[in-house]
Amino acid sequence: MSNSAILLIHCPDQPGLVAQVTEFVHKNRGNITNLDQHVDRDLNHFFMRIEWDLTDFVIPKEKIGDYFSTLIGSTYNMEWQLKFTDQKPRMALFVSKASHCLYDILQRYGTGEYDCEITAIVSNHTKLAYIAERFDIPFHHIPITRETKPEQEQKTKVLLDELQTDFIVLARYMQILSDDFCDHYATRIINIHHSFLPAFKGARPYHSAFERGVKLIGATSHYVTADLDEGPIIAQDVERVSHRHGINDLKRIGKDVEKRVLSRAIYLQLQHRVLPFGNRTVIFN
Amino acid sequence: MSNSAILLIHCPDQPGLVAQVTEFVHKNRGNITNLDQHVDRDLNHFFMRIEWDLTDFVIPKEKIGDYFSTLIGSTYNMEWQLKFTDQKPRMALFVSKASHCLYDILQRYGTGEYDCEITAIVSNHTKLAYIAERFDIPFHHIPITRETKPEQEQKTKVLLDELQTDFIVLARYMQILSDDFCDHYATRIINIHHSFLPAFKGARPYHSAFERGVKLIGATSHYVTADLDEGPIIAQDVERVSHRHGINDLKRIGKDVEKRVLSRAIYLQLQHRVLPFGNRTVIFN
Amino acid sequence: MSNSAILLIHCPDQPGLVAQVTEFVHKNRGNITNLDQHVDRDLNHFFMRIEWDLTDFVIPKEKIGDYFSTLIGSTYNMEWQLKFTDQKPRMALFVSKASHCLYDILQRYGTGEYDCEITAIVSNHTKLAYIAERFDIPFHHIPITRETKPEQEQKTKVLLDELQTDFIVLARYMQILSDDFCDHYATRIINIHHSFLPAFKGARPYHSAFERGVKLIGATSHYVTADLDEGPIIAQDVERVSHRHGINDLKRIGKDVEKRVLSRAIYLQLQHRVLPFGNRTVIFN
Amino acid sequence: MSNSAILLIHCPDQPGLVAQVTEFVHKNRGNITNLDQHVDRDLNHFFMRIEWDLTDFVIPKEKIGDYFSTLIGSTYNMEWQLKFTDQKPRMALFVSKASHCLYDILQRYGTGEYDCEITAIVSNHTKLAYIAERFDIPFHHIPITRETKPEQEQKTKVLLDELQTDFIVLARYMQILSDDFCDHYATRIINIHHSFLPAFKGARPYHSAFERGVKLIGATSHYVTADLDEGPIIAQDVERVSHRHGINDLKRIGKDVEKRVLSRAIYLQLQHRVLPFGNRTVIFN
Repeated sequence: MSNSAILLIHCPDQPGLVAQVTEFVHKNRGNITNLDQHVDRDLNHFFMRIEWDLTDFVIPKEKIGDYFSTLIGSTYNMEWQLKFTDQKPRMALFVSKASHCLYDILQRYGTGEYDCEITAIVSNHTKLAYIAERFDIPFHHIPITRETKPEQEQKTKVLLDELQTDFIVLARYMQILSDDFCDHYATRIINIHHSFLPAFKGARPYHSAFERGVKLIGATSHYVTADLDEGPIIAQDVERVSHRHGINDLKRIGKDVEKRVLSRAIYLQLQHRVLPFGNRTVIFN
Repeated sequence: MSNSAILLIHCPDQPGLVAQVTEFVHKNRGNITNLDQHVDRDLNHFFMRIEWDLTDFVIPKEKIGDYFSTLIGSTYNMEWQLKFTDQKPRMALFVSKASHCLYDILQRYGTGEYDCEITAIVSNHTKLAYIAERFDIPFHHIPITRETKPEQEQKTKVLLDELQTDFIVLARYMQILSDDFCDHYATRIINIHHSFLPAFKGARPYHSAFERGVKLIGATSHYVTADLDEGPIIAQDVERVSHRHGINDLKRIGKDVEKRVLSRAIYLQLQHRVLPFGNRTVIFN
Repeated sequence: MSNSAILLIHCPDQPGLVAQVTEFVHKNRGNITNLDQHVDRDLNHFFMRIEWDLTDFVIPKEKIGDYFSTLIGSTYNMEWQLKFTDQKPRMALFVSKASHCLYDILQRYGTGEYDCEITAIVSNHTKLAYIAERFDIPFHHIPITRETKPEQEQKTKVLLDELQTDFIVLARYMQILSDDFCDHYATRIINIHHSFLPAFKGARPYHSAFERGVKLIGATSHYVTADLDEGPIIAQDVERVSHRHGINDLKRIGKDVEKRVLSRAIYLQLQHRVLPFGNRTVIFN
Repeated sequence: MSNSAILLIHCPDQPGLVAQVTEFVHKNRGNITNLDQHVDRDLNHFFMRIEWDLTDFVIPKEKIGDYFSTLIGSTYNMEWQLKFTDQKPRMALFVSKASHCLYDILQRYGTGEYDCEITAIVSNHTKLAYIAERFDIPFHHIPITRETKPEQEQKTKVLLDELQTDFIVLARYMQILSDDFCDHYATRIINIHHSFLPAFKGARPYHSAFERGVKLIGATSHYVTADLDEGPIIAQDVERVSHRHGINDLKRIGKDVEKRVLSRAIYLQLQHRVLPFGNRTVIFN
């Protein structure tokens, strides 16, 4: 099994950042296996992802964060996250009635493409319970009405915390989450929206796409924020359509785009390659 | 040289339409070389493009319209256009300061890819006059201010009429045309908008795309209507971008998408393959 | 339920073909809902797909073929197939050890996207039997060695005939079928090859793609012929890769392309939109 | 004007490489503005591109190579190239009769998208001389027959050397260069091949694509080696086609793919982002 550390860093740009970080790893006998950095010239902001082999690293795993913070992070006003490749990310899936994304994710999970734990499948409906059963994953039916939303979301939070869930994937979950819930899991909820955002925000995007007569339809995976369909975009893709495609064709073709865009976003998340900043993302790949 | 007729038809759907039209052609000894039809099930509307060889056709060219109208068109409440492949479409190009689309169009024209006449290059600036000169095409400098717009548009109309211009291509023309002008040339003005409509309507779409952090940028070619950026879409395409691309990169990459989307729209128009209907288009290809 | 007939026709091109066929339908009170035709100018060959509503059609379903053949087909030397939309195509799936295409197909089948019957899942391994079980579809383990191939293929034929199977999908089936088997099911076996054919024919295409340093990888769905990887192509697609992708990444990304190309080919087949001719296909869509 | 240095490095992988190089830059007061590295795990080989601002750099420009070689390069067995952003690359264009790539390149050059000098347009025909004239670039007609090839290539070499040409772009140049010529300009000649290599090597790829009935056609830009169409690939792209497209359509659509693939390769080359290694390329972008 791989035994590496991954640091995701960002801070105001200034001379010497790359050299400082690489020296920190190198001096302590870590072998850098991957390094990617980016400077946003408009914002004068620095972003970096560095991955190194821990085999000979002299700082114990549990102290790497401390040391890094003291020696470098605080000096340069860095915000950073530290991940270890031997710790499987723990992901919860939220679904409603559409099965295409769920099957796609579970097939990838089942064949080892996704190196993670699925802590739970949560749904406001029971329709897809049989799929959870087929894949032997705990299914939680948590129906939501306008009245019960606060308590049901609270119940969901408790459940996810108990299961030590790192992040949530809304795999065509047809419920708007409360601002509180969104804030609590900031940059930890990934949604798939069935349009090429910012076109066709909100409900029924395929109907709108049909009305507008577009020649391509798309899907967008993004972090969920309190501002609906406005969160940082992780992945997008499109598919060609024509006048021959009615609304049901758009839905059918769209499902394929949804599947592949969401699955790509999840893969990037599991590899710790997504760094959200403001309303944008840096994707290290 | 090819000697064919092309009929573009649309009307409320009803039984027998295809049979009636093909019989009309066949009985009069026209050989059908191309037929494409489409029924919009939501609108219950019928669309057709039929092309036939005129070599042995018994109805004289100048009377085909009359005969078709009398025998079939009026019976079925058809709206139709009749085109002949031996009549080159006459196209005017409107430009401002950006040369990429203009060069692309002129290269296609120069090598015979576009089978048409370019009647004029019209510009509100003089910057690209040298290109017109290189290609030996008349260049008309028609500067426009808020005050002079009505008279300058009138002057433009007179010019285009004198030149028997069939349609206008706005090849990155940075002036908003008046409603009058748009109406006068309804479905006869093709624009290229530098975004994937309906996302990023209006000015500075690359800036907006950058702000929103999209992962694909696009371009849209559409017929111009009085309602800005809302006309029927003819062609769209996108290109992948990432956080590494600043606004200037988006502009640079975007130019390539603009070029290929506009050139595709012009090609379809020259082949009489675009049938606008309401705010959508049927593309026979 | 829809009650339409679909005719797929091809023959040497000659004047009047479209008119004859549409008249046949129209005179007998069939309402044409879809017509697409194509003439290959190099081969001087005519192709057509016509779909009409049978509600008021005066010829009984079981006699349409006879009448069409007598009145039109034989006159014009047509080869034709007649399909009815109320008869679900019957499809068998052949798999080996990879599950991604199988899951994708079964999810589409389960949600009604594929309007067909799956008669059997046949495999030379037992690894995917559990998936068949989950979806409640009969699984047949038919192992094959060089020695047993003739008898096992014979056994397979008997099985498929009993199940009245219309066509076979090789969903990453890792066995080369005998020439006899291929001929018996000519244009009735659809394969997915994991490269952009004709590049990287044969085994281990991702290894070859890696060695060659290509910047795009692809997948190809085609009818199986005795000539390996040379049959008529139905659908192809590609995905961008880079030097960052090792062979395992190519395999991972390739799976997604395989899934979507194969699923598109199956969809076209189920809609009777594929007309193979020589080593090419006409796709009516 | 930008005043930066760019180092392109590759060597056998070993611990500490990134740290050593970044430290070299940092200690000498260079500010790293861009760093990208890659390790090929199969070959155990390391690749890096690093760009830094020279404003405060303490080593004089003309000595940077020496110092780097002595202090780091030789220790780690590195092969490296050093480039400066204030030195415009000098590019020669070879053409025959097709103008589409040439116009595309010259338009980009003329509007400043390509930051380079075009030293010459060389052609074995005179057909495109007028374009060189329009853009005011020296045109050299160097016709080649089987007999005259050695002397004409020699003449070409002398010309290019006099003009201090850094690299050559074959913009649809329809002559096979001798092995000697290819070796002399190893990884300094960029070609555009009008197919998705390795499919359809050699002459008349669109005819072969048509015969094979592919559903996508492509273009490939690669470094020229003595082994025809086998050199390291820089960029590739494809476009969708169908049975409706005859050979002339494939050629027409293919031109667009050729243009954009070649222009992308040139852009990468001008930015010193291409590192060929064996028969593959690392593209830092």
